[in-house]
Amino acid sequence: MITYPVAQKSFQFEILYQSKISRARVGKIHTPHGVIDTPNFVAVGTNGSLKALANHEHQALNVQLMFCNTYHLMVQPGTALIKKAGGLHKFIQRSLPIITDSGGFQVFSLAYGQVAKELKGQGGKKHPSSVVKVSEEGVIFRSYRDGTKILLSPESTVLAQKDLGSDIIIPLDELLPYHVDDAMLKASFARTHRWEKRSLHAHLQQKQHQAMYAVVHGGTDLELRHQSCGILSNEPFDGFAIGGSLGCDHQQLINTVAGTTSHLPSEAPVHLLGIGDVTSLEQCIPYGIDTFDSSYPTKVARHGMLLTQNGPLKISRQAHAREFFAIEGDCLCKTCQHYTRAYLHHLFKANEPTLASLASIHNVHFMMRKMESLRAQILCGLI
Amino acid sequence: MITYPVAQKSFQFEILYQSKISRARVGKIHTPHGVIDTPNFVAVGTNGSLKALANHEHQALNVQLMFCNTYHLMVQPGTALIKKAGGLHKFIQRSLPIITDSGGFQVFSLAYGQVAKELKGQGGKKHPSSVVKVSEEGVIFRSYRDGTKILLSPESTVLAQKDLGSDIIIPLDELLPYHVDDAMLKASFARTHRWEKRSLHAHLQQKQHQAMYAVVHGGTDLELRHQSCGILSNEPFDGFAIGGSLGCDHQQLINTVAGTTSHLPSEAPVHLLGIGDVTSLEQCIPYGIDTFDSSYPTKVARHGMLLTQNGPLKISRQAHAREFFAIEGDCLCKTCQHYTRAYLHHLFKANEPTLASLASIHNVHFMMRKMESLRAQILCGLI
Repeated sequence: MITYPVAQKSFQFEILYQSKISRARVGKIHTPHGVIDTPNFVAVGTNGSLKALANHEHQALNVQLMFCNTYHLMVQPGTALIKKAGGLHKFIQRSLPIITDSGGFQVFSLAYGQVAKELKGQGGKKHPSSVVKVSEEGVIFRSYRDGTKILLSPESTVLAQKDLGSDIIIPLDELLPYHVDDAMLKASFARTHRWEKRSLHAHLQQKQHQAMYAVVHGGTDLELRHQSCGILSNEPFDGFAIGGSLGCDHQQLINTVAGTTSHLPSEAPVHLLGIGDVTSLEQCIPYGIDTFDSSYPTKVARHGMLLTQNGPLKISRQAHAREFFAIEGDCLCKTCQHYTRAYLHHLFKANEPTLASLASIHNVHFMMRKMESLRAQILCGLI
Repeated sequence: MITYPVAQKSFQFEILYQSKISRARVGKIHTPHGVIDTPNFVAVGTNGSLKALANHEHQALNVQLMFCNTYHLMVQPGTALIKKAGGLHKFIQRSLPIITDSGGFQVFSLAYGQVAKELKGQGGKKHPSSVVKVSEEGVIFRSYRDGTKILLSPESTVLAQKDLGSDIIIPLDELLPYHVDDAMLKASFARTHRWEKRSLHAHLQQKQHQAMYAVVHGGTDLELRHQSCGILSNEPFDGFAIGGSLGCDHQQLINTVAGTTSHLPSEAPVHLLGIGDVTSLEQCIPYGIDTFDSSYPTKVARHGMLLTQNGPLKISRQAHAREFFAIEGDCLCKTCQHYTRAYLHHLFKANEPTLASLASIHNVHFMMRKMESLRAQILCGLI
């Protein structure tokens, strides 16, 4: 087993450079498990593993922050077992920082179907299914593995995340589908903020050197977003995550982000939940977003989509069968160093599982390189 | 792309030590792409990739010989394309030796169902299906991809393997199911040897520094095996592979191997086709087998079976959920260096694709270590 020294015990956000032409900034988030250069992309490893990319591999790619899902880890293997293993870093053998969510997103996705779709206004189901009971206390859901009832409350999610020992934790919030009436939205809005404060209170009772990011809500209603920023900024959160519905198109996403970050304290780090396509990153960074998480690069990799400076490339296309050169000539990832597009095309056609790994190595490396370039562009005064 | 110097142009088998108590020997097979220490285990990468283990990874595990299947590579991506890429080594980016088969095994498996089962006498189907036409000329089969008819003849398989440029190639032979009458067996036996001679003839016309191993046939009939050894030893083959039915149990396998190797020239390398479980290796080495190929270690890895000095271990078992230690404490593979049994159990339960990679790394490393230990045991006079 690898053991690593803990560099710094406390969480700190350091702004190294503030753009003169936008709200973009270059910074460093200091955590007990090391530094995250910002703006940065956060890779998602739901069950404590990126899909098709072992932890020692993406750590070697310098993925500075990894996102794990508390809901999945509660259900399998259970946070008590992870605590017994010495915490999530030790259990999954990651020495660098980890952020975990509250579990709320997944619980509500059981209720609404595909939450991501819902949040973008494309959902079909508009009412919670019977598997979830929401009350002031919290949410009761059934484990998808064995059907047992589990209560997820502001206090229980914090305790679960204490077991995990992640560097950045997230309070319980309620996710509503896009199509709800005003009364439902307002009731949920108020409850979410009560839940977040209870989560913060539970967290501060045993801080364990962890940081907690508040989740800003309000959907696409900029007045509600403003209110949410006001309520949460009055509490001693370490940073902010932008959650809830971000609208059904690119323009609404940008409007929501712009209308939110302008009401947040500029000295705090801001995370945008669940957004990871390059266009969105480029458009949101000027509004002061510091970190983004998404399973996009690894998910599309499994389907043979490779990210390049010239846009995504579908390796399944016949045109790539005879391209005896790398995905990107100037890319230093192991995939580009070793293999040609023709070989990757062949692996895809032959249904070889190594395609997913090799494509994920490239896509994650691409994201790391893209973020490095965006940080450089801010420093050069271009963003 | 990585390019490697070609060490030695010609094939040579060097016996370093001959056991005093058995026919076991320790040797080195020299090939244009490097040395294979023998006895050794040959990993199978059907489509030019081990399952869930990229070529740069198992090359780092010192897998000295890789087995690829000509049939699969003919159908996808086609051997002409591989030739255009600069040969199989360059196409799949492997600098170390490669052995390819003739394609016959897979073609006949289309006819008989699961050939491996058939060869062990457990098969159900006894007659070739209509997809295969066998004549003196060769075998006609339909591509499983697009239905086109392909002729596999002694000459065409050699030409395909010339395109591939593998270090060791195999002549076309016919595989019969276990349950056939004497007349059918004898007719096939004679034709197989005619095919092998034609393959050798085609090979010698453009040797390209490749070696060709004859395939010894005769099923479990030791008299036929003796005859086959006699016929093939009279031809300038570089080595021998034991093919065909090896019987339906362990004892028959050993009897067949023992009754075959005793009639082969002791200075030639001997390969046992399709056998890779540790017990069989240990029992066959004393009869002079130098190399074994099998997909067993990577196939069982995908099902969560991990090879250990104390026998195979099923990582899915609940007992492993709280084992916060490596698969094997003294194993130096990346999986054992980084991860615990508890984490691997969790990855299995969570259906994470990284389990297959991590288990394959361990199992292939285990086989390499096992072969090293068996070579040491021969040198110490224990085998």
